[in-house]
Amino acid sequence: MILMSGAEVAKSLEQRLQEEVEDLRKRGCQPTLAVLLVGDNPASQSYVRAKLKTAERIGIQARHYELPQSAQQAELLARVRELNVDRQVHGILCQLPLPAHLNADEAVQQIAPLKDVDGLTAANMGLLALGTPRFIPCTPAGILEMLRFYKLPVAGKTAVVIGRSNIVGRPVSILLSQRDWNATVMLCHSKSLQLAEWTRRADLLVAAVGIPEFVTGDMVREGAVVVDVGINRVTDPGRPKGYRICGDVNHRQVAPKCLAITPVPGGVGPMTVTMLMVNTVQAARLQQGLAP
Amino acid sequence: MILMSGAEVAKSLEQRLQEEVEDLRKRGCQPTLAVLLVGDNPASQSYVRAKLKTAERIGIQARHYELPQSAQQAELLARVRELNVDRQVHGILCQLPLPAHLNADEAVQQIAPLKDVDGLTAANMGLLALGTPRFIPCTPAGILEMLRFYKLPVAGKTAVVIGRSNIVGRPVSILLSQRDWNATVMLCHSKSLQLAEWTRRADLLVAAVGIPEFVTGDMVREGAVVVDVGINRVTDPGRPKGYRICGDVNHRQVAPKCLAITPVPGGVGPMTVTMLMVNTVQAARLQQGLAP
Repeated sequence: MILMSGAEVAKSLEQRLQEEVEDLRKRGCQPTLAVLLVGDNPASQSYVRAKLKTAERIGIQARHYELPQSAQQAELLARVRELNVDRQVHGILCQLPLPAHLNADEAVQQIAPLKDVDGLTAANMGLLALGTPRFIPCTPAGILEMLRFYKLPVAGKTAVVIGRSNIVGRPVSILLSQRDWNATVMLCHSKSLQLAEWTRRADLLVAAVGIPEFVTGDMVREGAVVVDVGINRVTDPGRPKGYRICGDVNHRQVAPKCLAITPVPGGVGPMTVTMLMVNTVQAARLQQGLAP
Repeated sequence: MILMSGAEVAKSLEQRLQEEVEDLRKRGCQPTLAVLLVGDNPASQSYVRAKLKTAERIGIQARHYELPQSAQQAELLARVRELNVDRQVHGILCQLPLPAHLNADEAVQQIAPLKDVDGLTAANMGLLALGTPRFIPCTPAGILEMLRFYKLPVAGKTAVVIGRSNIVGRPVSILLSQRDWNATVMLCHSKSLQLAEWTRRADLLVAAVGIPEFVTGDMVREGAVVVDVGINRVTDPGRPKGYRICGDVNHRQVAPKCLAITPVPGGVGPMTVTMLMVNTVQAARLQQGLAP
């Protein structure tokens, strides 16, 4: 059984990225990522710190913009527009979720498509759906990169994706069924009936449903490849912090049956930050008129 | 067994469209569609004639632009840009396929998203993938409209789509799995193995594969709903023209097993033209600042 390590894949990618950044610098371009954080959500703050740290390690300049919890939509949009036209900035990331009084979708859709390193604007989602992606959203991109790194078979295989979010399930289901991957893909969601009947037929199972340990051992076939996208906090009085992090897959039950599986934490999670850097370097190259 | 008639559904839609056009005219807006035809492909000429005729019947003004077979890409792009900024034109359709020396994708992507009544630009495909479609491509839109008209059950059902084209299979697979429809969708294609094993489980089967009578009786379950998107010419010396038109489904074998099925011709085909008119009226409304 292969335990797919996000840290291992990320490390190999980071080496390549450092070289690409070096190359861009020699051409007079310092790849730069603007990270926009609104409010004081501790999880968001911690994600932003991780992104800034990774950027620094790779040589990407990260600019950190903060707006207060009380920020108004107009302020947020104005900031995005400012960054859109700032020629020193190649990528813009608006850390989600935003405070509830703000319209996150409007803000994200305002980002210039060439700087949309999260790949969530309509223009970029459309290019992805049409089979010519410019920026692949970070979590789907990370999943594909892990499958590639561990040379896991996908073409001609049956893939079942659980969860139809715009950030993970939807794009990964589209990508896996395109010519680059050639999987036969079924997309399941909260309104799917007899879910286990489908998951048991999956050669590749992607769980992105946001429910702790939703996928149990009886739902997975022997020899499956399982990608666990969930990052859930579960109360656990036995732990120092009073909780533990678990995925959407019951790892203890499922792992023994798998050809390969991602752990949580340490699987898809670390890849997401790295793929943001891949997209930022890609954005800088595109804005320099270089080939992707 | 319900034989889903495109003509019947189209007729009911056209009545509604005529009223909407009348309403727009009272507001001083004459909905107008520009149809761009390049070269002398007889099938394209016949499709364009059908579109012009339908537009006229509904009260949509159709402007017909022709470019010669020898037209250059720059001419084509210039014409599209001209129509993009023409405030009298609400919808632009570039009839496909284009002559082989032209870049069809570049031309289509040049169309202003608000006038892209075929729904094929990245911006509109992205809105569709994100669950907030502006213009649904005409064939997928026609399929959904027929399912709605005949009140066929989709939510919670298993849908299998064969064919992953950007015009039909891909968008219809995305739409059926969204909240409006809630089907559990599997997208199959030329690299899918054991196809029949999947199609036999389909409550709803959409065949958009372009191979005459590809779906045979043994591939379909009793009580399935079957949508046949294919329009194939098959040599038939017994016919006056030397050929007959058939779908991607072996109708004779499959129809007796179905809860409902579309015939070919007379099924999805007639809907496609009508949905173009729906999108054109929608484009006029959007450009007038009216609610969709």
